[in-house]
Amino acid sequence: MTSTTSLFDLKAAIADLAGLDIITDPQQIAKLSQDYYTFSPVLVEQLTGKVGGVVIRPVDEAEVIRVAQVCVKYKIPLTVRGAGTGNYGQCVPLEGGVILDMTRMTAVKWVKPGMARMEAGVKLSVLDKQTRETGWEIRMAPSTYRTATIGGFIGGGSGGIGSVTYGQLRDRGNLQAVRVVTMEDEPKAIELRGDDVYKVAHAYGTNGIITELEVPLAPAYPWAEAIVTFPDFMTAARFGQAISDADGVIKKLVCICADPIPGYFAALKSYFPEGSHCALLIVSETSLEALNEWLKDFGGTIAYQKTAQEASKGVTLSEYSWNHTTLHARSVDPTLTYLQTLFPDDKQLTLLEHMYQHFGDEVMMHLEFLRVGGVARPAALQVVRYTTEERLNEIIAYHEAKGAFIFNPHTYVLEDGGMKQVDVEQLKFKERVDPYGLLNPGKMRAWLER
Amino acid sequence: MTSTTSLFDLKAAIADLAGLDIITDPQQIAKLSQDYYTFSPVLVEQLTGKVGGVVIRPVDEAEVIRVAQVCVKYKIPLTVRGAGTGNYGQCVPLEGGVILDMTRMTAVKWVKPGMARMEAGVKLSVLDKQTRETGWEIRMAPSTYRTATIGGFIGGGSGGIGSVTYGQLRDRGNLQAVRVVTMEDEPKAIELRGDDVYKVAHAYGTNGIITELEVPLAPAYPWAEAIVTFPDFMTAARFGQAISDADGVIKKLVCICADPIPGYFAALKSYFPEGSHCALLIVSETSLEALNEWLKDFGGTIAYQKTAQEASKGVTLSEYSWNHTTLHARSVDPTLTYLQTLFPDDKQLTLLEHMYQHFGDEVMMHLEFLRVGGVARPAALQVVRYTTEERLNEIIAYHEAKGAFIFNPHTYVLEDGGMKQVDVEQLKFKERVDPYGLLNPGKMRAWLER
Repeated sequence: MTSTTSLFDLKAAIADLAGLDIITDPQQIAKLSQDYYTFSPVLVEQLTGKVGGVVIRPVDEAEVIRVAQVCVKYKIPLTVRGAGTGNYGQCVPLEGGVILDMTRMTAVKWVKPGMARMEAGVKLSVLDKQTRETGWEIRMAPSTYRTATIGGFIGGGSGGIGSVTYGQLRDRGNLQAVRVVTMEDEPKAIELRGDDVYKVAHAYGTNGIITELEVPLAPAYPWAEAIVTFPDFMTAARFGQAISDADGVIKKLVCICADPIPGYFAALKSYFPEGSHCALLIVSETSLEALNEWLKDFGGTIAYQKTAQEASKGVTLSEYSWNHTTLHARSVDPTLTYLQTLFPDDKQLTLLEHMYQHFGDEVMMHLEFLRVGGVARPAALQVVRYTTEERLNEIIAYHEAKGAFIFNPHTYVLEDGGMKQVDVEQLKFKERVDPYGLLNPGKMRAWLER
Repeated sequence: MTSTTSLFDLKAAIADLAGLDIITDPQQIAKLSQDYYTFSPVLVEQLTGKVGGVVIRPVDEAEVIRVAQVCVKYKIPLTVRGAGTGNYGQCVPLEGGVILDMTRMTAVKWVKPGMARMEAGVKLSVLDKQTRETGWEIRMAPSTYRTATIGGFIGGGSGGIGSVTYGQLRDRGNLQAVRVVTMEDEPKAIELRGDDVYKVAHAYGTNGIITELEVPLAPAYPWAEAIVTFPDFMTAARFGQAISDADGVIKKLVCICADPIPGYFAALKSYFPEGSHCALLIVSETSLEALNEWLKDFGGTIAYQKTAQEASKGVTLSEYSWNHTTLHARSVDPTLTYLQTLFPDDKQLTLLEHMYQHFGDEVMMHLEFLRVGGVARPAALQVVRYTTEERLNEIIAYHEAKGAFIFNPHTYVLEDGGMKQVDVEQLKFKERVDPYGLLNPGKMRAWLER
């Protein structure tokens, strides 16, 4: 337990918030102080034992404002969380205080062709269920889609399943508007649109409490799924690049896993010949015939195929992609950890091939293709055999020295992950909306070092 | 009138075809022997006066087979046409004979999410009207969309409005299946799928008579339209590249016209400040806010904007794009002609800028962005001040020498346009399905020189 909770008068605050959904049970608080930072042995060391003092679950924006007012009054830290499916300790309350659990704010305000507005706490899968009735769905989602909230995804995520077509959340047009409650002396809700949304998107909840969002929707194609196996990893990787570059093929997921990763997928294991490398694909059912022609070119074998109808039931391949690949690997071997890497725009995949050969079994290659600035590139969420933090840092340094960009998942500091530098706009905005630095303290380096 | 019509017994053929919709009126035949090759002064010289001997308008595939049988029996050339909106003389009957007008075969066989099957003669706009009822539309279309047929587009086109997102017709997945009637001794219908479709796609009807097609559909977004003006051409061009590369912006048309081209758009003229360069844009209504941010970056001014609702009525901006840009310019000055150029994948647009400055007012720059191999690139349909064929060839040679790829629109020979080389698969297929060389004779160099 942290000692910081004694620095502020939590009891008085709780009394002021009478009538709200308040959780004081220590076990529940401990659970709601966590996310999936356990993927990182480095973060485990830094974050274990950090807990909030109380959890509050608002049901509407008025309640959020009330909580903000009380936290400002008593200068109590406030850390927002959605489902807690993040991996960087985004929602771990470093200085205790109030945990604001948004999962009861689940209203979908409206759905139009290509756009929807909703409260921050709605689960991505629940949102999709509603928008799909009119033929639309969210453009991109993390592999935690079934439980993750939209607010958590926008606050702490960057892209995912769908990014092979629509790029990342930071790309203009992928987030239309955000409504946030401030932590000023008189907290209020403000609406951000256009480029202003990036003042709070991917800011780990340090820049206002997201209450509502307007998010663009993608057409809900009849999504088919396929697992394709290849005897050679680089052929699988080149196939991934080719299908990602294929403008006539509608796709949502192009995930390539090097042997022995497929062996970690317990439920799918029987589909993989010994020593094979695989592609997990989600493509429009209407693109399957075109896909077959690409498979002929690259010598891939379809090991598993589901129609859209079949894929809509049971576990989908998304559940094995992005950071769920790591999850499955870790459920077999909990000593494993991971990296996040963006490889250069190079259709030859030269640096990727080098890293694959250089590290061998220590850094097992798992690629996710996504669009960056109009070009499909391989990102990697390599599964890493962890030995020491020093060795992990060596691996990271080697990648960076060779020109692969690392989004370090072994830090809870906002700027030290993917941004690498201070975002002046975000800092200026924080000075305005959170002058006392109460929102998720300890996460924004720009604020700590200003 | 050509004299070749006397080499075969057209009268006997017509007698054999009694009961079909047969046009023998010379004026009508002359009209149905043409397309819009008049855009090219070179083709005007080569094609003027070429006419067929009779026009037949089949209502179903059985009638197509009957016509094929009779043409084979009497060894009469057969040239297929849709609406005749092509520009390369694709459907001009060089050796007379039968003109097969497909515009009565208009049945839409079925529409599913993301795919439709239809007869070759249905107009693109009519097809869309039907598919839009279920939220879908064709992925790409020429600017002649209102009158062009799907069969004509697949037989003679390459891409168009929509290609900025979906690439070109030749990209796998953009054409699912084609059914053709052969001209063997026993004509029959055969279905081609997968890569086999390219044996007849963009073959000018030399490789079988397309009767039915299966074409993938795109989601029918609520398409808004905008005209943006820029004081400087290269800024407009760079804006075009940026918005084409913007993965979060849903778009259908990114057309950039250098001054003085906007002055040729009679109905839109009032929107353009003197000397301005423009972008004609069709984007999802949901992407308008993101578009505004790009306009701030590039200093573009919105001169005209229509919501999806407004844009669905009256003339759309598509009517000013692709080869309709040329059409509007020529309706003001009929001495103008055009070029078709693909510029390299170079985000700096270096070669484009060079050509713009090098040729000045003689080669007026008109860009259409489209995806090629996963990357957005500028194609140009420059409006050219024509003087002599020699000078036109000089301009073409200069482009090619500098590394710009020319799809020459001043030839009716299939391979001399964009392909540049013989397609062995197409030739082998022709030997099988048209052993007597009766289909649209004179258009395939591979056949003539074999």
